[in-house]
Amino acid sequence: MNELDLVDRIRRMSGGARPREGLLLGIGDDCAIYRPKSTEDMLFKTDQLIEGVHFLPTLPPAAIGQRALARALSDIAAMGGTPRLCLVSLTIPRNRPASWILAFFRGLLALARRTGTILAGGDLARSDKLYCDVMLCGVVPRGLALRRDTARPGDNLWISGRLGKPWDRPIRPRLDLGRKLLRRDIACTACIDISDGLALDLHRLCLASGVAAELDRVALLKRVARGASLERALHGGDDYELLFTLPPRKAGPAGTTKIGKMVAGKPGAMRLEGRPLAPRGYDHFGIDIT
Amino acid sequence: MNELDLVDRIRRMSGGARPREGLLLGIGDDCAIYRPKSTEDMLFKTDQLIEGVHFLPTLPPAAIGQRALARALSDIAAMGGTPRLCLVSLTIPRNRPASWILAFFRGLLALARRTGTILAGGDLARSDKLYCDVMLCGVVPRGLALRRDTARPGDNLWISGRLGKPWDRPIRPRLDLGRKLLRRDIACTACIDISDGLALDLHRLCLASGVAAELDRVALLKRVARGASLERALHGGDDYELLFTLPPRKAGPAGTTKIGKMVAGKPGAMRLEGRPLAPRGYDHFGIDIT
Repeated sequence: MNELDLVDRIRRMSGGARPREGLLLGIGDDCAIYRPKSTEDMLFKTDQLIEGVHFLPTLPPAAIGQRALARALSDIAAMGGTPRLCLVSLTIPRNRPASWILAFFRGLLALARRTGTILAGGDLARSDKLYCDVMLCGVVPRGLALRRDTARPGDNLWISGRLGKPWDRPIRPRLDLGRKLLRRDIACTACIDISDGLALDLHRLCLASGVAAELDRVALLKRVARGASLERALHGGDDYELLFTLPPRKAGPAGTTKIGKMVAGKPGAMRLEGRPLAPRGYDHFGIDIT
Repeated sequence: MNELDLVDRIRRMSGGARPREGLLLGIGDDCAIYRPKSTEDMLFKTDQLIEGVHFLPTLPPAAIGQRALARALSDIAAMGGTPRLCLVSLTIPRNRPASWILAFFRGLLALARRTGTILAGGDLARSDKLYCDVMLCGVVPRGLALRRDTARPGDNLWISGRLGKPWDRPIRPRLDLGRKLLRRDIACTACIDISDGLALDLHRLCLASGVAAELDRVALLKRVARGASLERALHGGDDYELLFTLPPRKAGPAGTTKIGKMVAGKPGAMRLEGRPLAPRGYDHFGIDIT
Protein backbone atom coordinates (compact mmCIF):
# COMPACT_ATOMS: atom_id res chain seq x y z
CA MET A 1 0.00 0.00 0.00
CA ASN A 2 1.61 3.30 -1.07
CA GLU A 3 0.83 6.83 0.08
CA LEU A 4 -1.89 7.41 -2.55
CA ASP A 5 -3.69 4.15 -1.62
CA LEU A 6 -3.46 4.84 2.09
CA VAL A 7 -4.72 8.41 1.75
CA ASP A 8 -7.57 7.11 -0.38
CA ARG A 9 -8.58 4.62 2.35
CA ILE A 10 -8.49 7.34 5.01
CA ARG A 11 -10.45 9.70 2.74
CA ARG A 12 -13.21 7.13 2.30
CA MET A 13 -13.27 6.44 6.07
CA SER A 14 -13.64 10.20 6.67
CA GLY A 15 -16.73 10.43 4.46
CA GLY A 16 -15.02 11.24 1.16
CA ALA A 17 -14.75 14.60 -0.56
CA ARG A 18 -18.50 15.31 -0.59
CA PRO A 19 -19.46 18.78 0.71
CA ARG A 20 -21.12 18.93 4.16
CA GLU A 21 -21.52 21.33 7.09
CA GLY A 22 -19.75 24.18 5.33
CA LEU A 23 -16.89 21.99 4.08
CA LEU A 24 -16.81 22.46 0.29
CA LEU A 25 -13.75 20.25 -0.33
CA GLY A 26 -12.15 17.71 2.01
CA ILE A 27 -9.11 15.43 1.73
CA GLY A 28 -7.53 15.23 -1.72
CA ASP A 29 -6.53 18.69 -2.95
CA ASP A 30 -3.75 21.10 -1.96
CA CYS A 31 -6.03 22.57 0.73
CA ALA A 32 -9.44 21.90 2.24
CA ILE A 33 -12.07 24.59 1.49
CA TYR A 34 -14.56 25.76 4.12
CA ARG A 35 -17.34 28.34 3.72
CA PRO A 36 -17.82 30.19 7.03
CA LYS A 37 -21.16 31.50 8.33
CA SER A 38 -21.48 35.22 8.92
CA THR A 39 -22.96 34.61 12.40
CA GLU A 40 -19.92 32.75 13.71
CA ASP A 41 -16.38 33.38 14.86
CA MET A 42 -13.86 30.65 14.18
CA LEU A 43 -11.65 28.96 16.79
CA PHE A 44 -8.23 27.46 16.04
CA LYS A 45 -6.22 25.05 18.15
CA THR A 46 -3.31 22.70 17.58
CA ASP A 47 -2.13 20.00 19.97
CA GLN A 48 0.72 17.50 19.75
CA LEU A 49 0.66 13.92 21.03
CA ILE A 50 4.04 12.20 21.12
CA GLU A 51 4.83 8.61 22.07
CA GLY A 52 6.86 8.46 25.27
CA VAL A 53 5.97 12.08 26.13
CA HIS A 54 2.16 12.18 26.21
CA PHE A 55 1.38 8.45 26.29
CA LEU A 56 3.05 5.04 26.67
CA PRO A 57 3.85 2.83 23.65
CA THR A 58 1.43 0.22 25.05
CA LEU A 59 -1.63 2.38 24.27
CA PRO A 60 -3.57 0.79 21.35
CA PRO A 61 -3.65 2.81 18.08
CA ALA A 62 -7.41 3.50 18.23
CA ALA A 63 -6.99 4.95 21.75
CA ILE A 64 -4.08 7.13 20.57
CA GLY A 65 -6.22 8.47 17.71
CA GLN A 66 -9.11 9.15 20.10
CA ARG A 67 -6.83 10.89 22.58
CA ALA A 68 -5.13 13.05 19.93
CA LEU A 69 -8.47 14.52 18.88
CA ALA A 70 -9.98 14.65 22.39
CA ARG A 71 -7.23 16.90 23.74
CA ALA A 72 -7.88 19.53 21.07
CA LEU A 73 -11.67 19.17 21.46
CA SER A 74 -11.26 20.04 25.14
CA ASP A 75 -9.81 23.42 24.13
CA ILE A 76 -12.74 24.10 21.80
CA ALA A 77 -15.06 23.21 24.73
CA ALA A 78 -13.21 25.70 26.95
CA MET A 79 -14.13 28.52 24.54
CA GLY A 80 -17.80 27.43 24.38
CA GLY A 81 -17.27 26.27 20.80
CA THR A 82 -18.56 23.56 18.50
CA PRO A 83 -15.95 21.62 16.49
CA ARG A 84 -16.22 21.77 12.69
CA LEU A 85 -13.14 20.26 11.07
CA CYS A 86 -9.71 18.87 11.87
CA LEU A 87 -6.44 18.28 10.05
CA VAL A 88 -4.29 15.40 11.31
CA SER A 89 -0.52 15.15 10.88
CA LEU A 90 0.92 11.74 11.64
CA THR A 91 4.49 10.48 11.57
CA ILE A 92 4.72 6.72 11.94
CA PRO A 93 7.70 4.50 12.76
CA ARG A 94 8.66 2.32 9.78
CA ASN A 95 7.81 -0.91 11.60
CA ARG A 96 4.09 -0.10 12.01
CA PRO A 97 1.96 -1.55 9.23
CA ALA A 98 -0.83 0.20 7.33
CA SER A 99 -3.32 -1.63 9.59
CA TRP A 100 -1.90 0.30 12.56
CA ILE A 101 -2.46 3.61 10.76
CA LEU A 102 -6.02 2.66 9.80
CA ALA A 103 -6.79 1.64 13.42
CA PHE A 104 -5.47 5.03 14.59
CA PHE A 105 -7.85 6.80 12.20
CA ARG A 106 -10.78 4.55 13.16
CA GLY A 107 -10.34 5.63 16.81
CA LEU A 108 -10.01 9.28 15.86
CA LEU A 109 -12.97 9.18 13.45
CA ALA A 110 -15.29 7.49 15.97
CA LEU A 111 -14.87 10.48 18.29
CA ALA A 112 -14.99 12.87 15.32
CA ARG A 113 -18.41 11.52 14.29
CA ARG A 114 -19.78 11.73 17.86
CA THR A 115 -18.74 15.38 18.08
CA GLY A 116 -19.56 16.54 14.53
CA THR A 117 -15.91 17.04 13.56
CA ILE A 118 -15.00 16.46 9.89
CA LEU A 119 -11.54 15.12 9.03
CA ALA A 120 -10.68 17.60 6.27
CA GLY A 121 -7.00 16.98 5.63
CA GLY A 122 -3.63 16.11 7.06
CA ASP A 123 -0.14 14.92 6.32
CA LEU A 124 1.55 11.52 6.61
CA ALA A 125 5.27 10.82 7.01
CA ARG A 126 7.60 8.03 8.09
CA SER A 127 10.27 8.47 10.74
CA ASP A 128 11.54 6.49 13.76
CA LYS A 129 9.11 7.85 16.33
CA LEU A 130 5.33 8.11 16.59
CA TYR A 131 4.27 11.72 16.44
CA CYS A 132 0.82 13.19 16.00
CA ASP A 133 -0.48 16.74 15.70
CA VAL A 134 -4.17 17.62 15.46
CA MET A 135 -5.29 21.02 14.20
CA LEU A 136 -8.88 21.65 15.13
CA CYS A 137 -11.19 24.39 13.87
CA GLY A 138 -14.43 25.16 15.69
CA VAL A 139 -17.11 27.83 15.64
CA VAL A 140 -18.80 29.96 18.28
CA PRO A 141 -21.57 32.59 17.96
CA ARG A 142 -19.97 35.95 17.11
CA GLY A 143 -18.43 37.78 20.03
CA LEU A 144 -19.42 35.13 22.60
CA ALA A 145 -16.25 32.97 22.86
CA LEU A 146 -15.30 32.24 26.47
CA ARG A 147 -11.84 33.59 27.22
CA ARG A 148 -9.38 33.24 30.09
CA ASP A 149 -8.55 36.95 30.41
CA THR A 150 -11.99 38.17 31.51
CA ALA A 151 -12.42 36.90 35.12
CA ARG A 152 -13.08 39.62 37.70
CA PRO A 153 -12.43 39.95 41.44
CA GLY A 154 -15.56 38.79 43.27
CA ASP A 155 -16.42 36.07 40.72
CA ASN A 156 -16.77 32.56 42.08
CA LEU A 157 -14.58 29.75 40.75
CA TRP A 158 -16.27 26.57 39.50
CA ILE A 159 -15.12 23.24 38.08
CA SER A 160 -16.80 20.36 36.28
CA GLY A 161 -16.39 16.67 37.13
CA ARG A 162 -13.60 15.29 39.30
CA LEU A 163 -9.87 15.95 39.43
CA GLY A 164 -6.92 13.56 39.58
CA LYS A 165 -8.37 10.89 37.31
CA PRO A 166 -6.13 8.11 35.88
CA TRP A 167 -4.01 9.30 32.93
CA ASP A 168 -4.87 6.48 30.57
CA ARG A 169 -8.67 6.65 30.65
CA PRO A 170 -10.53 7.89 27.54
CA ILE A 171 -10.94 11.68 27.57
CA ARG A 172 -14.51 13.03 27.35
CA PRO A 173 -14.26 16.63 26.15
CA ARG A 174 -16.82 18.87 27.90
CA LEU A 175 -18.36 20.26 24.72
CA ASP A 176 -21.96 20.27 26.02
CA LEU A 177 -20.93 22.07 29.19
CA GLY A 178 -18.90 24.64 27.23
CA ARG A 179 -21.92 25.47 25.06
CA LYS A 180 -24.16 25.74 28.17
CA LEU A 181 -21.76 28.28 29.65
CA LEU A 182 -22.53 30.59 26.71
CA ARG A 183 -26.12 30.98 27.95
CA ARG A 184 -26.95 34.51 29.03
CA ASP A 185 -28.60 33.38 32.30
CA ILE A 186 -25.42 31.62 33.39
CA ALA A 187 -23.29 34.70 32.68
CA CYS A 188 -19.93 32.90 32.63
CA THR A 189 -17.12 35.47 32.83
CA ALA A 190 -14.06 33.29 31.98
CA CYS A 191 -13.16 29.68 31.22
CA ILE A 192 -10.10 27.43 30.71
CA ASP A 193 -9.68 23.67 30.44
CA ILE A 194 -7.61 21.81 33.02
CA SER A 195 -5.05 19.97 30.92
CA ASP A 196 -1.86 20.59 32.91
CA GLY A 197 -3.30 20.46 36.45
CA LEU A 198 -5.71 22.69 38.40
CA ALA A 199 -2.95 24.76 40.05
CA LEU A 200 -1.09 25.56 36.81
CA ASP A 201 -4.20 26.23 34.71
CA LEU A 202 -5.81 28.37 37.44
CA HIS A 203 -2.54 30.30 37.61
CA ARG A 204 -2.77 30.92 33.84
CA LEU A 205 -6.38 32.09 34.14
CA CYS A 206 -5.42 34.44 37.01
CA LEU A 207 -2.40 35.84 35.14
CA ALA A 208 -4.43 36.46 31.98
CA SER A 209 -7.21 38.20 33.94
CA GLY A 210 -4.88 40.12 36.27
CA VAL A 211 -6.48 38.68 39.41
CA ALA A 212 -5.68 36.34 42.33
CA ALA A 213 -7.63 33.28 43.55
CA GLU A 214 -8.61 31.65 46.83
CA LEU A 215 -9.47 27.94 46.84
CA ASP A 216 -11.84 26.28 49.34
CA ARG A 217 -10.10 23.12 50.64
CA VAL A 218 -13.30 21.41 51.83
CA ALA A 219 -15.14 21.98 48.54
CA LEU A 220 -12.09 20.87 46.59
CA LEU A 221 -11.63 17.64 48.57
CA LYS A 222 -15.15 16.62 47.53
CA ARG A 223 -14.12 16.86 43.85
CA VAL A 224 -11.02 14.66 44.12
CA ALA A 225 -11.44 11.48 42.06
CA ARG A 226 -11.72 8.16 43.91
CA GLY A 227 -8.26 6.83 44.71
CA ALA A 228 -6.49 10.13 43.93
CA SER A 229 -4.71 12.44 46.38
CA LEU A 230 -5.34 16.18 46.79
CA GLU A 231 -1.75 16.65 45.54
CA ARG A 232 -2.57 14.78 42.32
CA ALA A 233 -5.85 16.71 41.91
CA LEU A 234 -3.99 20.01 42.28
CA HIS A 235 -0.83 19.36 40.29
CA GLY A 236 -1.47 16.32 38.07
CA GLY A 237 -2.43 16.82 34.46
CA ASP A 238 -4.79 15.37 31.87
CA ASP A 239 -8.12 15.98 33.65
CA TYR A 240 -9.73 17.87 30.75
CA GLU A 241 -12.42 19.37 32.98
CA LEU A 242 -13.52 22.99 32.65
CA LEU A 243 -12.51 25.63 35.21
CA PHE A 244 -14.73 28.72 34.95
CA THR A 245 -15.86 31.83 36.78
CA LEU A 246 -19.39 33.10 37.46
CA PRO A 247 -20.72 36.27 39.06
CA PRO A 248 -21.42 35.84 42.83
CA ARG A 249 -25.15 35.13 42.65
CA LYS A 250 -25.03 32.75 39.67
CA ALA A 251 -24.99 28.94 39.88
CA GLY A 252 -23.13 26.61 37.52
CA PRO A 253 -24.92 23.93 35.44
CA ALA A 254 -25.55 20.44 36.87
CA GLY A 255 -22.35 18.49 37.50
CA THR A 256 -20.28 21.57 38.37
CA THR A 257 -19.10 22.72 41.80
CA LYS A 258 -17.97 25.99 43.37
CA ILE A 259 -14.41 25.56 44.67
CA GLY A 260 -13.29 29.11 45.44
CA LYS A 261 -13.34 32.72 44.31
CA MET A 262 -11.36 35.31 42.42
CA VAL A 263 -9.95 38.20 44.46
CA ALA A 264 -8.03 41.39 43.86
CA GLY A 265 -4.31 40.84 44.46
CA LYS A 266 -1.02 40.03 42.76
CA PRO A 267 -1.97 38.64 39.34
CA GLY A 268 -1.53 34.88 39.37
CA ALA A 269 -1.26 34.53 43.16
CA MET A 270 -3.24 31.58 44.57
CA ARG A 271 -4.13 30.52 48.10
CA LEU A 272 -5.55 27.23 49.38
CA GLU A 273 -7.33 27.74 52.70
CA GLY A 274 -5.17 30.81 53.29
CA ARG A 275 -1.80 29.21 52.43
CA PRO A 276 0.09 30.03 49.20
CA LEU A 277 -0.39 27.48 46.42
CA ALA A 278 2.47 26.97 43.95
CA PRO A 279 1.61 26.97 40.21
CA ARG A 280 3.17 23.56 39.72
CA GLY A 281 1.76 21.26 37.04
CA TYR A 282 2.73 19.58 33.82
CA ASP A 283 5.24 21.87 32.11
CA HIS A 284 6.92 20.40 29.03
CA PHE A 285 9.78 22.81 29.33
CA GLY A 286 10.30 22.89 33.09
CA ILE A 287 13.90 23.61 33.95
CA ASP A 288 15.79 22.21 31.00
CA ILE A 289 15.80 25.26 28.72
CA THR A 290 18.60 27.72 29.35
CA MET B 1 13.41 29.99 30.74
CA ASN B 2 10.26 27.88 31.32
CA GLU B 3 7.35 27.25 28.94
CA LEU B 4 5.39 30.34 30.04
CA ASP B 5 8.42 32.62 29.52
CA LEU B 6 9.26 31.10 26.15
CA VAL B 7 5.67 31.34 24.90
CA ASP B 8 5.59 34.94 26.08
CA ARG B 9 8.74 35.75 24.07
CA ILE B 10 7.29 34.10 20.94
CA ARG B 11 3.96 35.89 21.47
CA ARG B 12 5.69 39.28 21.58
CA MET B 13 7.75 38.41 18.46
CA SER B 14 4.50 37.48 16.68
CA GLY B 15 2.94 40.89 17.34
CA GLY B 16 1.25 40.08 20.67
CA ALA B 17 -2.43 39.43 21.28
CA ARG B 18 -3.69 42.63 19.64
CA PRO B 19 -6.50 42.12 17.10
CA ARG B 20 -5.59 42.53 13.40
CA GLU B 21 -6.74 41.35 9.96
CA GLY B 22 -9.72 39.47 11.35
CA LEU B 23 -7.75 37.84 14.18
CA LEU B 24 -9.60 38.77 17.40
CA LEU B 25 -7.35 36.81 19.77
CA GLY B 26 -3.90 35.39 19.09
CA ILE B 27 -1.45 33.33 21.17
CA GLY B 28 -2.32 32.98 24.86
CA ASP B 29 -5.78 31.44 25.28
CA ASP B 30 -7.16 27.92 24.74
CA CYS B 31 -7.82 28.78 21.08
CA ALA B 32 -7.18 31.64 18.66
CA ILE B 33 -10.33 33.49 17.52
CA TYR B 34 -10.79 34.64 13.90
CA ARG B 35 -13.75 36.54 12.43
CA PRO B 36 -14.24 35.48 8.78
CA LYS B 37 -15.48 37.75 5.99
CA SER B 38 -18.69 36.81 4.22
CA THR B 39 -17.04 37.31 0.80
CA GLU B 40 -14.38 34.67 1.38
CA ASP B 41 -13.95 30.91 1.53
CA MET B 42 -11.31 29.60 3.90
CA LEU B 43 -8.43 27.29 2.95
CA PHE B 44 -6.80 24.83 5.37
CA LYS B 45 -3.48 23.06 5.02
CA THR B 46 -1.09 21.25 7.34
CA ASP B 47 2.47 20.22 6.51
CA GLN B 48 5.11 18.41 8.52
CA LEU B 49 8.85 19.09 8.46
CA ILE B 50 11.01 16.48 10.17
CA GLU B 51 14.76 16.50 10.71
CA GLY B 52 16.45 13.74 8.73
CA VAL B 53 13.33 13.27 6.56
CA HIS B 54 12.66 16.68 5.00
CA PHE B 55 15.97 18.43 5.76
CA LEU B 56 19.47 17.79 7.09
CA PRO B 57 20.45 18.58 10.69
CA THR B 58 22.97 21.11 9.35
CA LEU B 59 20.23 23.52 8.19
CA PRO B 60 20.25 26.61 10.48
CA PRO B 61 17.16 27.07 12.71
CA ALA B 62 15.98 30.25 10.94
CA ALA B 63 16.07 28.41 7.57
CA ILE B 64 14.10 25.49 9.08
CA GLY B 65 11.44 27.90 10.36
CA GLN B 66 11.27 29.65 6.98
CA ARG B 67 11.00 26.31 5.15
CA ALA B 68 8.30 24.95 7.47
CA LEU B 69 6.01 27.89 6.68
CA ALA B 70 7.00 28.17 3.00
CA ARG B 71 5.89 24.61 2.19
CA ALA B 72 2.39 25.26 3.49
CA LEU B 73 2.25 28.69 1.80
CA SER B 74 2.93 26.96 -1.52
CA ASP B 75 -0.31 24.98 -1.10
CA ILE B 76 -2.28 28.16 -0.38
CA ALA B 77 -0.72 29.65 -3.55
CA ALA B 78 -1.84 26.59 -5.54
CA MET B 79 -5.47 27.34 -4.61
CA GLY B 80 -5.14 31.05 -5.55
CA GLY B 81 -5.37 31.97 -1.88
CA THR B 82 -3.97 34.61 0.45
CA PRO B 83 -2.56 33.38 3.78
CA ARG B 84 -4.18 34.72 6.96
CA LEU B 85 -2.92 32.83 10.01
CA CYS B 86 -0.81 29.87 11.04
CA LEU B 87 -0.42 27.60 14.06
CA VAL B 88 3.01 26.09 14.64
CA SER B 89 3.68 22.85 16.52
CA LEU B 90 7.30 22.29 17.42
CA THR B 91 9.00 19.41 19.21
CA ILE B 92 12.59 20.18 20.09
CA PRO B 93 15.42 17.85 21.18
CA ARG B 94 16.42 18.52 24.79
CA ASN B 95 19.92 19.64 23.85
CA ARG B 96 18.73 22.66 21.81
CA PRO B 97 18.67 25.85 23.88
CA ALA B 98 15.90 28.46 23.96
CA SER B 99 18.03 30.58 21.60
CA TRP B 100 17.63 27.85 18.95
CA ILE B 101 13.85 27.95 19.32
CA LEU B 102 13.77 31.75 19.10
CA ALA B 103 15.95 31.67 15.93
CA PHE B 104 13.52 29.14 14.39
CA PHE B 105 10.61 31.51 15.05
CA ARG B 106 12.57 34.54 13.77
CA GLY B 107 13.03 32.74 10.43
CA LEU B 108 9.41 31.68 10.29
CA LEU B 109 8.10 35.12 11.30
CA ALA B 110 10.22 36.98 8.73
CA LEU B 111 8.44 35.04 5.95
CA ALA B 112 5.11 35.35 7.80
CA ARG B 113 5.41 39.15 7.78
CA ARG B 114 6.36 39.28 4.08
CA THR B 115 3.28 37.22 3.18
CA GLY B 116 0.75 38.70 5.66
CA THR B 117 0.50 35.52 7.73
CA ILE B 118 -0.22 35.96 11.45
CA LEU B 119 1.25 33.45 13.94
CA ALA B 120 -1.94 32.81 15.95
CA GLY B 121 -1.01 29.82 18.10
CA GLY B 122 0.86 26.56 18.40
CA ASP B 123 2.22 23.94 20.73
CA LEU B 124 5.70 23.28 22.12
CA ALA B 125 7.08 19.98 23.40
CA ARG B 126 10.42 18.33 24.17
CA SER B 127 11.46 15.00 22.75
CA ASP B 128 14.61 13.49 21.19
CA LYS B 129 13.95 14.53 17.60
CA LEU B 130 13.21 17.81 15.85
CA TYR B 131 9.72 17.79 14.50
CA CYS B 132 7.62 20.64 13.13
CA ASP B 133 4.07 20.92 11.84
CA VAL B 134 2.58 24.10 10.39
CA MET B 135 -1.18 24.52 10.05
CA LEU B 136 -1.98 27.34 7.68
CA CYS B 137 -5.31 29.05 7.07
CA GLY B 138 -5.83 31.24 4.02
CA VAL B 139 -8.70 32.92 2.22
CA VAL B 140 -9.91 33.08 -1.36
CA PRO B 141 -12.88 34.94 -2.93
CA ARG B 142 -16.01 32.78 -2.57
CA GLY B 143 -16.31 29.98 -5.08
CA LEU B 144 -13.07 30.87 -6.91
CA ALA B 145 -10.52 28.52 -5.30
CA LEU B 146 -8.31 26.76 -7.87
CA ARG B 147 -8.70 23.00 -7.61
CA ARG B 148 -6.90 20.00 -9.07
CA ASP B 149 -10.03 18.11 -10.12
CA THR B 150 -11.26 20.56 -12.79
CA ALA B 151 -8.81 20.21 -15.70
CA ARG B 152 -10.43 19.26 -19.06
CA PRO B 153 -9.18 17.46 -22.16
CA GLY B 154 -7.91 20.07 -24.60
CA ASP B 155 -6.57 22.40 -21.89
CA ASN B 156 -2.91 23.32 -22.18
CA LEU B 157 -0.52 22.53 -19.32
CA TRP B 158 1.63 25.35 -17.93
CA ILE B 159 4.31 25.69 -15.25
CA SER B 160 5.98 28.58 -13.47
CA GLY B 161 9.74 29.00 -12.96
CA ARG B 162 12.24 26.20 -13.37
CA LEU B 163 12.29 22.58 -12.26
CA GLY B 164 15.01 20.54 -10.56
CA LYS B 165 16.36 23.31 -8.34
CA PRO B 166 18.71 22.49 -5.40
CA TRP B 167 16.82 21.11 -2.36
CA ASP B 168 18.37 23.41 0.22
CA ARG B 169 17.62 26.79 -1.36
CA PRO B 170 15.01 29.06 0.30
CA ILE B 171 11.51 28.34 -1.02
CA ARG B 172 9.64 31.28 -2.60
CA PRO B 173 5.91 30.38 -2.53
CA ARG B 174 4.15 31.53 -5.72
CA LEU B 175 1.42 33.49 -3.92
CA ASP B 176 1.34 36.38 -6.44
CA LEU B 177 1.07 33.98 -9.37
CA GLY B 178 -1.70 31.98 -7.63
CA ARG B 179 -3.74 35.15 -7.15
CA LYS B 180 -3.16 36.17 -10.80
CA LEU B 181 -4.53 32.81 -11.93
CA LEU B 182 -7.88 33.76 -10.35
CA ARG B 183 -8.34 36.53 -12.94
CA ARG B 184 -11.27 35.96 -15.24
CA ASP B 185 -9.27 36.81 -18.40
CA ILE B 186 -6.73 34.07 -17.60
CA ALA B 187 -9.48 31.47 -17.07
CA CYS B 188 -7.31 28.94 -15.22
CA THR B 189 -9.14 25.58 -15.08
CA ALA B 190 -7.00 23.68 -12.51
CA CYS B 191 -3.84 24.13 -10.43
CA ILE B 192 -1.51 22.13 -8.14
CA ASP B 193 1.90 22.90 -6.62
CA ILE B 194 4.90 20.77 -7.54
CA SER B 195 6.20 19.61 -4.17
CA ASP B 196 6.89 15.93 -4.86
CA GLY B 197 8.12 16.22 -8.48
CA LEU B 198 6.43 17.19 -11.77
CA ALA B 199 5.62 13.59 -12.77
CA LEU B 200 3.96 12.63 -9.48
CA ASP B 201 2.06 15.91 -9.03
CA LEU B 202 0.89 15.95 -12.66
CA HIS B 203 -0.29 12.36 -12.14
CA ARG B 204 -2.32 13.54 -9.12
CA LEU B 205 -3.86 16.40 -11.12
CA CYS B 206 -4.75 13.98 -13.96
CA LEU B 207 -6.25 11.40 -11.57
CA ALA B 208 -8.34 14.02 -9.77
CA SER B 209 -9.62 15.46 -13.07
CA GLY B 210 -10.10 12.10 -14.77
CA VAL B 211 -7.86 13.01 -17.71
CA ALA B 212 -4.48 12.07 -19.25
CA ALA B 213 -1.54 14.34 -20.14
CA GLU B 214 1.04 14.71 -22.91
CA LEU B 215 4.27 16.54 -22.15
CA ASP B 216 6.34 18.41 -24.75
CA ARG B 217 10.00 17.37 -24.26
CA VAL B 218 11.50 20.40 -26.04
CA ALA B 219 9.42 22.90 -24.04
CA LEU B 220 10.17 21.02 -20.82
CA LEU B 221 13.96 20.94 -21.42
CA LYS B 222 13.92 24.76 -21.55
CA ARG B 223 12.48 24.85 -18.01
CA VAL B 224 15.09 22.58 -16.39
CA ALA B 225 17.13 24.50 -13.82
CA ARG B 226 20.81 25.15 -14.56
CA GLY B 227 22.89 22.12 -13.53
CA ALA B 228 19.88 19.80 -13.17
CA SER B 229 18.97 16.79 -15.33
CA LEU B 230 15.62 16.17 -17.02
CA GLU B 231 15.30 13.15 -14.70
CA ARG B 232 15.64 15.39 -11.65
CA ALA B 233 13.21 17.95 -13.12
CA LEU B 234 10.63 15.21 -13.71
CA HIS B 235 10.98 13.11 -10.56
CA GLY B 236 12.80 15.23 -7.95
CA GLY B 237 10.82 17.05 -5.32
CA ASP B 238 10.79 20.40 -3.54
CA ASP B 239 10.37 22.70 -6.54
CA TYR B 240 7.29 24.53 -5.19
CA GLU B 241 6.35 25.87 -8.62
CA LEU B 242 2.74 25.93 -9.84
CA LEU B 243 1.48 23.49 -12.47
CA PHE B 244 -1.80 24.70 -14.01
CA THR B 245 -4.13 24.29 -16.98
CA LEU B 246 -5.57 26.93 -19.29
CA PRO B 247 -8.07 26.76 -22.15
CA PRO B 248 -6.35 26.38 -25.59
CA ARG B 249 -6.38 30.04 -26.64
CA LYS B 250 -5.32 31.50 -23.28
CA ALA B 251 -1.77 32.49 -22.31
CA GLY B 252 -0.25 32.18 -18.83
CA PRO B 253 1.11 35.19 -16.91
CA ALA B 254 4.74 36.33 -17.37
CA GLY B 255 7.26 33.78 -16.10
CA THR B 256 5.12 30.77 -17.00
CA THR B 257 5.56 28.32 -19.89
CA LYS B 258 3.37 25.90 -21.79
CA ILE B 259 4.82 22.37 -21.45
CA GLY B 260 2.07 20.12 -22.74
CA LYS B 261 -1.65 19.48 -22.87
CA MET B 262 -4.43 17.50 -21.22
CA VAL B 263 -6.05 14.78 -23.32
CA ALA B 264 -8.88 12.32 -23.00
CA GLY B 265 -7.55 8.91 -21.93
CA LYS B 266 -6.94 6.64 -18.95
CA PRO B 267 -7.12 8.95 -15.90
CA GLY B 268 -3.61 9.61 -14.62
CA ALA B 269 -1.82 8.33 -17.74
CA MET B 270 1.08 10.52 -18.86
CA ARG B 271 3.25 10.59 -21.97
CA LEU B 272 6.50 12.41 -22.66
CA GLU B 273 6.99 12.90 -26.40
CA GLY B 274 4.78 9.88 -26.98
CA ARG B 275 6.46 7.53 -24.48
CA PRO B 276 4.77 6.53 -21.18
CA LEU B 277 5.97 8.55 -18.17
CA ALA B 278 5.95 6.84 -14.75
CA PRO B 279 4.39 8.73 -11.82
CA ARG B 280 7.59 8.45 -9.78
CA GLY B 281 8.42 11.20 -7.29
CA TYR B 282 8.89 11.79 -3.62
CA ASP B 283 6.55 9.37 -1.83
CA HIS B 284 7.00 9.17 1.94
CA PHE B 285 5.37 5.79 2.02
CA GLY B 286 6.77 4.18 -1.12
CA ILE B 287 7.05 0.43 -0.73
CA ASP B 288 7.45 0.00 3.00
CA ILE B 289 3.80 -0.19 4.04
CA THR B 290 2.23 -3.62 3.82
